[in-house]
Amino acid sequence: MILAKVIGRVISNQKTPELRGAKLLIVNKVDKYQKEIEDATYVAIDKVGAGQGDVVLVGDSYSTDTSDNIKQAKQDMSIVAIVENIEI
Amino acid sequence: MILAKVIGRVISNQKTPELRGAKLLIVNKVDKYQKEIEDATYVAIDKVGAGQGDVVLVGDSYSTDTSDNIKQAKQDMSIVAIVENIEI
Amino acid sequence: MILAKVIGRVISNQKTPELRGAKLLIVNKVDKYQKEIEDATYVAIDKVGAGQGDVVLVGDSYSTDTSDNIKQAKQDMSIVAIVENIEI
Amino acid sequence: MILAKVIGRVISNQKTPELRGAKLLIVNKVDKYQKEIEDATYVAIDKVGAGQGDVVLVGDSYSTDTSDNIKQAKQDMSIVAIVENIEI
Amino acid sequence: MILAKVIGRVISNQKTPELRGAKLLIVNKVDKYQKEIEDATYVAIDKVGAGQGDVVLVGDSYSTDTSDNIKQAKQDMSIVAIVENIEI
Repeated sequence: MILAKVIGRVISNQKTPELRGAKLLIVNKVDKYQKEIEDATYVAIDKVGAGQGDVVLVGDSYSTDTSDNIKQAKQDMSIVAIVENIEI
Repeated sequence: MILAKVIGRVISNQKTPELRGAKLLIVNKVDKYQKEIEDATYVAIDKVGAGQGDVVLVGDSYSTDTSDNIKQAKQDMSIVAIVENIEI
Repeated sequence: MILAKVIGRVISNQKTPELRGAKLLIVNKVDKYQKEIEDATYVAIDKVGAGQGDVVLVGDSYSTDTSDNIKQAKQDMSIVAIVENIEI
Repeated sequence: MILAKVIGRVISNQKTPELRGAKLLIVNKVDKYQKEIEDATYVAIDKVGAGQGDVVLVGDSYSTDTSDNIKQAKQDMSIVAIVENIEI
Repeated sequence: MILAKVIGRVISNQKTPELRGAKLLIVNKVDKYQKEIEDATYVAIDKVGAGQGDVVLVGDSYSTDTSDNIKQAKQDMSIVAIVENIEI
């Protein structure tokens, strides 16, 4: 997982079914001092209610929904945690 | 997922069965100001009807087709959304 | 897998269910002489009781829990070993 | 997927069972003008009959063989298409 | 897959169950002339009896063990072949 800061939002209507209803945030990777690293911008699916300016963890997310045939539904590049504090 | 711009198209007849019928577009990663980043060119399978010049999201795509033995058919590097607007 | 050094810890309350109870450590990739490489900071889930300053292996981890429908629960970016010695 | 040029071949007898019978080609990533990018050399399994000098697509490949327990046999870094033409 | 040279070995007692009994080798990515690329050091699980100084292929490895519930046990970053010759 990477440390990143939420810097914006993507608006999109034409998307694949997996992305319907997903909140798509623009995140920028930060270094250990929470400084943005140049050209390290990604789009991540928010899973935890993150907002503008939040420092977050971005990683793969795995749902364990057993309602259908999908054993382990993976979604890459999700915001999986909001960081409250970093101890270095 | 990454933000990218559609810059071209690949023509190929000799390909694996998974790629039959796929529209193969050349995309170039862009930064948060939608400026192309050098040497960051990829080929992605279009899933959403993207066209030349569109800013798109490129990521893994997962079909949930249950018609055969494949539980979760993954296709890496797909265009999964057309970006209408970016709020930064 | 990569060689990395544990340099800190992340505190987070708002996170996805997969991360509940996980110890989230900040690691920095090191080169073969165990020197930290700039801007190569990641957050990894500790699986082996690692602590501040430890040189560790960071890679994907796969649980083989057969108690539910998940056949192979993957967790990317885990600390999977504490390095005692490196012979070069 | 990436655009790459076939620049050579690897000879190996000692390999894992998955690689038995595989044709292992050395490919170098190219930019959108088909110029080789420095230090971007990979080894890919040829799935489409590629040869020296061909511009190809390199990506993950997924067999759908249902003859055994493997639901979706993935092989990373395969040559999945020979590029005939690039329109930019 | 990448071309790499075996440059050392990792000694570790505290590790996850998946790594028990695994031989953990330090490899450094090489370019097409088999020259080591700076800061491209990884740790890989040896699957083929590789030794110090060998040029090897490093990639994901997939066991097809059907003795338990795991359909396709993946191990990332494994040494999957020893390279005898490179024809460029």
